[in-house]
Parts: sequence; structure tokens; C-alpha cells
Amino acid sequence: MKRELDFYECRHGLGYTSICGERGGVRATLLAFVPLGFDCEVHRLRLENRRRSRRRLTVFSCVEFCLWDALDDMTNFQRNFSTGEVLVDGSAVYHLTEYRERRNHFSFYWVNAPIAGCDTDREAFVGLYNGYHAPQVPLSGQPRNSKASGWSPIASHCVEVELEPGQHGELVFLLGYVENPEEQKWTAPGVPNTERAIAMQQGLGTSQAVAEALVELRAYWDGLLAQCRLTTGDEKLARMVNVWNPYQTLVTFNLARSASYFESGIARGIGFRDANQDLLGVVQMVPDRARRRLLDLAATQLPDGSAYHQYRPLTKEGNDEIGAGFNDDPLWLIMATDAYAKETGDLDVLQESVPFGSNPSVSGTLLEHLRRGLQRVWENLGPHGLPLIGRADWNDCLNLNCFSTDPDESFQTAPNRMEGRAESVLLGAMFVLAGRQYAELCRRRGLAEEAERAGRSAGQMRQTVMEQGWDGEWFLRALRRRGAEGGQPPVRRGSHLHRAAGVLRDGRTGAGGRPR
Amino acid sequence: MKRELDFYECRHGLGYTSICGERGGVRATLLAFVPLGFDCEVHRLRLENRRRSRRRLTVFSCVEFCLWDALDDMTNFQRNFSTGEVLVDGSAVYHLTEYRERRNHFSFYWVNAPIAGCDTDREAFVGLYNGYHAPQVPLSGQPRNSKASGWSPIASHCVEVELEPGQHGELVFLLGYVENPEEQKWTAPGVPNTERAIAMQQGLGTSQAVAEALVELRAYWDGLLAQCRLTTGDEKLARMVNVWNPYQTLVTFNLARSASYFESGIARGIGFRDANQDLLGVVQMVPDRARRRLLDLAATQLPDGSAYHQYRPLTKEGNDEIGAGFNDDPLWLIMATDAYAKETGDLDVLQESVPFGSNPSVSGTLLEHLRRGLQRVWENLGPHGLPLIGRADWNDCLNLNCFSTDPDESFQTAPNRMEGRAESVLLGAMFVLAGRQYAELCRRRGLAEEAERAGRSAGQMRQTVMEQGWDGEWFLRALRRRGAEGGQPPVRRGSHLHRAAGVLRDGRTGAGGRPR
Repeated sequence: MKRELDFYECRHGLGYTSICGERGGVRATLLAFVPLGFDCEVHRLRLENRRRSRRRLTVFSCVEFCLWDALDDMTNFQRNFSTGEVLVDGSAVYHLTEYRERRNHFSFYWVNAPIAGCDTDREAFVGLYNGYHAPQVPLSGQPRNSKASGWSPIASHCVEVELEPGQHGELVFLLGYVENPEEQKWTAPGVPNTERAIAMQQGLGTSQAVAEALVELRAYWDGLLAQCRLTTGDEKLARMVNVWNPYQTLVTFNLARSASYFESGIARGIGFRDANQDLLGVVQMVPDRARRRLLDLAATQLPDGSAYHQYRPLTKEGNDEIGAGFNDDPLWLIMATDAYAKETGDLDVLQESVPFGSNPSVSGTLLEHLRRGLQRVWENLGPHGLPLIGRADWNDCLNLNCFSTDPDESFQTAPNRMEGRAESVLLGAMFVLAGRQYAELCRRRGLAEEAERAGRSAGQMRQTVMEQGWDGEWFLRALRRRGAEGGQPPVRRGSHLHRAAGVLRDGRTGAGGRPR
Repeated sequence: MKRELDFYECRHGLGYTSICGERGGVRATLLAFVPLGFDCEVHRLRLENRRRSRRRLTVFSCVEFCLWDALDDMTNFQRNFSTGEVLVDGSAVYHLTEYRERRNHFSFYWVNAPIAGCDTDREAFVGLYNGYHAPQVPLSGQPRNSKASGWSPIASHCVEVELEPGQHGELVFLLGYVENPEEQKWTAPGVPNTERAIAMQQGLGTSQAVAEALVELRAYWDGLLAQCRLTTGDEKLARMVNVWNPYQTLVTFNLARSASYFESGIARGIGFRDANQDLLGVVQMVPDRARRRLLDLAATQLPDGSAYHQYRPLTKEGNDEIGAGFNDDPLWLIMATDAYAKETGDLDVLQESVPFGSNPSVSGTLLEHLRRGLQRVWENLGPHGLPLIGRADWNDCLNLNCFSTDPDESFQTAPNRMEGRAESVLLGAMFVLAGRQYAELCRRRGLAEEAERAGRSAGQMRQTVMEQGWDGEWFLRALRRRGAEGGQPPVRRGSHLHRAAGVLRDGRTGAGGRPR
């Protein structure tokens, strides 16, 4: 409600957030977390009367339901404003949009207390032409008991609370999700089966159960973080290394960048490159899941060694809209496999049979995937012997070979121009590292000859990088097309291209730097 | 700013809107319209001091720029929050996002007065975590002279105004759009060519010019509305028939339903059915444009007589995402052509050569298009001899043959089930009308035999409708699959299906009704 507070505190912990505000002697602390083993989010509201008089409070909750598909929600008014459906049963609001017709899932918002009323229609709650900054129902102090039928369904409970001086009380709200098998959708014609929701409410709907679930969550994280401990006299360093960094890497491994300040969570998969990178930081915490992810990623690699740039984690298939042609991608699979193998000692993973292009009839071992990836880069070298730049390679998206003048075309889908012969020094360096890692994996599998061959390639590439990519003081970022006529100078720091691409950093502090 | 006003008035006229508010003795009237012959919107602000003391006012304008693609704006944060670019030059804010790299167009917001400052960054203008309901810059009374670089570019002028008692003054704001030929993009390296924008500012940027443009706009509408006049003693009837109805139909012809309370203006074309219907009401006002639209629509018809359900007005191609299979669509082209021919007497249009499926190598006359459309329906009859229901036919979307249980599948793209033999009484009636119209068009073109054949089909369909679709009191809406086993009753009013489809109206007041 944007009121000035006498006290405010927000604490982010491992898997939970707690927000506390105090005003007029009432302190409200909202704890939110997803408990282990339940498909729901817990909202525990603790209210404390810090004054010497009895207080009567009216509490309004509010969540807004999405209609299952965020992109469709935003664009398909004709459908979505006509379909919203809710059911209020006791202290539970069930969000049932399309459940009757063709969904076997619903969500609910419930509170473990009797309610004085509730609202399920957004416009009724916030007021006409109004917004959440000044919602009319809490401002008026009265629920309107609105029933959403179409438009934008919400769930808002109204709970009356009375607190003696110094007393505190708790309300437990659950925002849950339920799937019913097709044959268990209804308990009677037109009556949705809410058994699973009620079981969740009974299992978690007390202060005691919430406290236990929080303990369980803490133990879960303690177990994950115990895998690797730094002992140091520097408290802040220890906290970063032992807690926040692994926590953050695991969150990233789970969600990638798919919903963030960068990504709206809509209409893209998870990057092949990103997912391999994310894996590097979690192999010690969740080795089994890392193994599974490695195999899933490899399964989207194409038979020619290239890789879909994104994969869809639910279908585990590559994203056809973006396709392949990012020349650094195959090398990341080698690096991720190497990190997994080094951490776990599990070399058997290399012998796992994995499809190419999500097609089970075209398979090879994981090691064969790595071989083709390395080969792919090795066979696509430019006139100086360095790897060709693909689309938006991990070289700060130089896009030297596929710059597009069509504003409706993404650089991620613009085709490489036929004359595109620009080369990447960065990819060359990546090839040196990945080539050596692959060679070592082969050696450990007893494939001496293959190890030897890969090692030679890596060595040769190293020589090329030093000869062509090193100007005596700095590494170049990239080499443009060769030749006197139409030839262009190599890409160094501060060139016109830096400004044009917008995201490029200065060569001296970015991709460049002294050789190691 | 959501302040209580002493006076408020909003007037919608033909092509303009005027909004007036008064508070504290200051009356502000904003007139907005798109003038003929300019790619811009005029905002004329008239300020009047109705008190007996001199007033000093600070006026803040504000528009927010979209980054050219509304869907991408909403979803692609990574791109759009990094690309926003503006240039302030005098009293003009130029929105230049991507102009440097790969656009030859920009927009601008300008005012015909010196400015005391301006803002071009949304967050600076509204304030952190704030919104347009309480923008910080006007609340503080001070421009912040923010410069957008990425994030969300806006244009907000700050103009100081002083008014003597009883005095009024005007400010003219122009929100313009400019395209430059590729070779005229720059006047010097890095300096965008704003000549066309300045010409627009000079041509329209005075109260006098705005008044003239408004007179011109009025004359334009008077001319359109003069094509058809009803003389009656009933003023309200005359106003509806002579002004608002034709105005509304022409707006609909221009914009279809593509941006409205139903449609977000994103990601769909204009309906083939809708566009034909829209045409019926405007043939007397814009016959040339109606003719062009007819031929554009026909060009998306497929060789088998079916039609893309939507076409994209800019590319003039059918929308592949939705495809064809809506069985009423072809009949609407006949009805629209009939209306156009009756109004204009132009029968030559029937001989125009028009592609099928936007493929110029497969063409036929418009008459041939109509013939194939009629034939398409005639050859897709169900067991009772009535037209089969397709996808989301104009029968209130009964979808009897393509109901989908996949919530991610649109009824507009769900395939007809193989056993889909449900029939539409409404389509049968449409066929009777369209068949007669087609027959008459053929007769007038001297094609007696074809006219005879079509008339016979229409007559036969009429008989079938009366025999199969009339229950003695009401017309049925549709017939489900035939046969004792698995047979289902016909669809009448108030059936379960009405509730399931949600949008269905009661049979007695909807598709049903007494025969005429």
C-alpha cells in the first residue's frame, strides 16, 4: 500500500524470503518459501501487537492467477478475458480456468483461518481504472466478495484478527498447484476433485507444520552446501564461497536465465552454452542431476557436431526457431563433461549412448558427441587457421559474419553470409582448452591414438593463436576478411564496431588482456 | 495525475478527440487528431486562465515510445532494454532506437515553444518503483533532463506558461514518424537527417496550421458521409445512420479488430471473414479501396476454394499459423463481391485476374475464385446434405468437429477429426444466400448455364435446410454425427454444449429464430 513504515527489513535466505514491516505498533512478518515435497508456496504471516492496547486488524491477502500461459495471457484477450473461472470453498479459492474443458490441473490459495469474505475478481479488488498501488478493497477495509467470471481472476482473503497487548499470531497461506488424473477430475458432475488440495492444506496448514518444513528445507541446503567447505579466517570470503556462490549457481542451474531482468521467461529455451556453463558450478552438489543434464544437452547436438543453441527443458528438444550455427557451443559440452568427470571420477558417462538431434535412431556415445563437436570447429577454420565466427558466438556477439540489416531479424537467426570468413581468436583459445580436455578424457579411456590426435590439434591451434592473434602486446579479438582488396583491419579495442554492437567492452579490459 | 477536477468533458468527433479538464481556475483542453497528408498525431493543448490573477504554469508532456515491435517489446528484455536511444534537439525529442544500425525510420515528439527542460528516460520521469499514476517529475514540478540510454525511452517536454487574467494560449505538440531513404539517413557521420521531421514541424506547428488541418479533416469526413444520406424527422436515427454508423464501419474497415478490447494488436492478421464483412458497410464511401481489398482477400484464397482464415494486411499474404479450414470463409467473399457490385455497378471486377494462395503463377478471375469457394462448400456436405462444420465456423464457434483436449492448442488450428461429420444449419442458410448472389452475378455476366447450375444448388440446399434443420418451431443450430450407435441429438438451445463453449448464446435468441 506504499505507506511509510516505522521499521522495515527484508531477508533472503536459502530458499526463503522474509519481509518485515512495522507501522502503528503492529509488526507484520511475511515468510515465503516452497517446501520440499509439496507443489506449493507457503506464505506465513506473523502479526505482533507491540502496543499496550488490544488491536483489531483486518488482513487482506492477494495473489493474481496467470491463465497458464504467460505469452497468451498478454496477447490473447479474446480467449483469456472470457475464460477465467474460480470456486470459493471455505477458506480456499480454487482457480479453475479451463479445468472443466480441457485441463486436469488447477491452483488454489488457502488460509488456515475462517475468512470474513474474499475477492476473486481483480477489477473489483483494485477498483475501476485503478492498480495495485491503491487497491480499493483494502483501502475501504471491506471485502466485496466478487466472483470472477472471465477477466482477471485473483484470490484475496479477508481475515479478522484480534491481538492482545504483546500478543502475536500467525496465519498460514498456501498457494498450491494440483494435477488430477483424467479419471479423478470430478467427484460428482461439475464438482472438481479437490482432495489433493485438501491433503496439502491439512499437511502444511499449521504453524507447527510450516516450522518443520522450514527446518527440513534448511537441512536440505546444509546438505548441499556441505559438499565443499572452505576454512578461512576471512568470514566474508567463507560466506561467499560456502554459501552464496554455490546457492546462486544452483538456482542458475535450475532456472538458467529464463526468467530474470534479462529474460521475460517467455518464448525461449535454455541456452546450450549457458546450460553447460551453469553445470560447471554445481557438479559437486548435484552430480546425478549434472550427469542427466549433460546427456540431455548432448542429445540435442546434431550429427555434424554442431548444436542447437537452445533446448527446451520440458521437451528436452532443441529450439528450431533459433537453430544451430553458434560455433562455440560444441566446445562447451566438452568443458562441462570434463568438469563433471574431474569432480565425480565417473568416466563411464563417456560410454553412454546419446541420440543426435533428439532422434533416438541416430545415436553415439557421449565421447563420440565430444569428438564430433571438436571436429566441427576444427573443420571450420578461416583463412588464418582460426575458427570461423558463427552467430553470436561467445565472443561478445561480434556477429562479424552475420550482421543483419533487417530490423525484424534476430542476430541469433541471421544466416552467415557466404563471404563470412571472419575468425575468432577467442574461439581459437577455447579450442586449445577443450582440445586438451578431450585428449585427457580419451587418454583415461585408453584411447591413446585419439588422445594424441586431439592434443596435436590443440597444440597447432595454440601456435596459430600466438602467431595470428597476438600483436606483441595484446590478443586481438577477431580477424576480419583477409586480403588486400576489401581487406579490413583486425578488430581491436575501441573500433567503430564496438560502438555499433553496443554491448562490446573495451578490448583492453574485455576479451583482450595479457597472455597467460 | 488523478486529481479531482472542477470540470471535465471528453468529446469524440470524426477523426479527433478533445478532452477538457478544469482545476483551480485553469482550463486545459487537449485536442488530438491525425491530420491528412502527414505521418503524425497532433496534440493541441489550449490553456485558459479563468481567474482574475496572473498565473504561471509548468506544463509537462509525456509520450512513451515503443521499440517498433510490441511483442518483442514485452518479451525480449535483453535486446530492448539495451537499445533505446534518443536525441534532444531544441524542442524536439527524436526516438532513434536502432536508427544507427539498421532502421531508416525514427519518431519524434516536438512542441512549438521553447522548453525549460525535458526527460527522455521513463524511470527518471515516473520515479523508481513508481508508475504513471504518480509521476515524480510533474509532482516535483522540475524536469530532470534525463537522457535515455537503453531502458524505456519517453519524451516529456517541460514548458513554462504565463497567462494574464482571462487569457488563453495554445501549445502544439507533434508526435511524428519519419522514413528516410537509405542514402539520406545522415547529414554528417553520426548526425541523423531530420529534414523531413523539421518540414513537418514547420508545416503543422502553429495554431493556424492546426486549425486548417482540422477544417480539412472535417471536409474529408463530410465528403465520405455525403455518399448516403437519410432524411428523417428523427434526429437520433439520422445521426446514427448518417454519422456514427458509417464512421464506425470505416474505422473497422481500416483497423479491423486488430487492436481493441478483444485483440491486443499482436501476432495475428486480419480475419478473411471479418474483412469481407467489414467491406459490406463501406462500399458506398470508399469503393476503390473496397475493390482493392476484395482482390487482396481473393488473392489469399487457396486453389481448392478454401481460404486462409486470416491475412496480413502489410504483406497481403495468408497467415500460415492459422491456415484454412473454416468452412464459412469462402462464402463471405461472394457476399462481399455481391455488395460491391450492387453498389458500384462494377462487374468488370469479376474478370480481374487474381492469384490463388498469393502465388502469381496460379491465377484465375475473381469470378473463378467465387465459383471455387461455392464449390468448396458444396463438395463438403455431411450425411444430411448440410455443409460440414469446419474450425470455428461463423456458427458461434461450435467446433463440433475439432474440439481439442490439448489446452495449448487453439481451436483455430485444431485439425478436424476424421470422424468429424457434424453439419451446420447456419452454413446451409449462408450457402443459399451466397449461391443466389453468385448465380445473379453469373447471369449478369451472360453465363446463363453457370447461373442456372448455381441457382439449382442454392435451391436444393434451401430444401435440405427446411427438411433437416427446421424442427417445426425453430431452426436447429447444428447436427451432430448421424446414426443410432454413437448418434447424438441435434444441438438446440441450452444444451450442455452451450455451457462448455462458453460463448454460445441461447438458441432462441442466437443462431436460431423463426424462419423468414
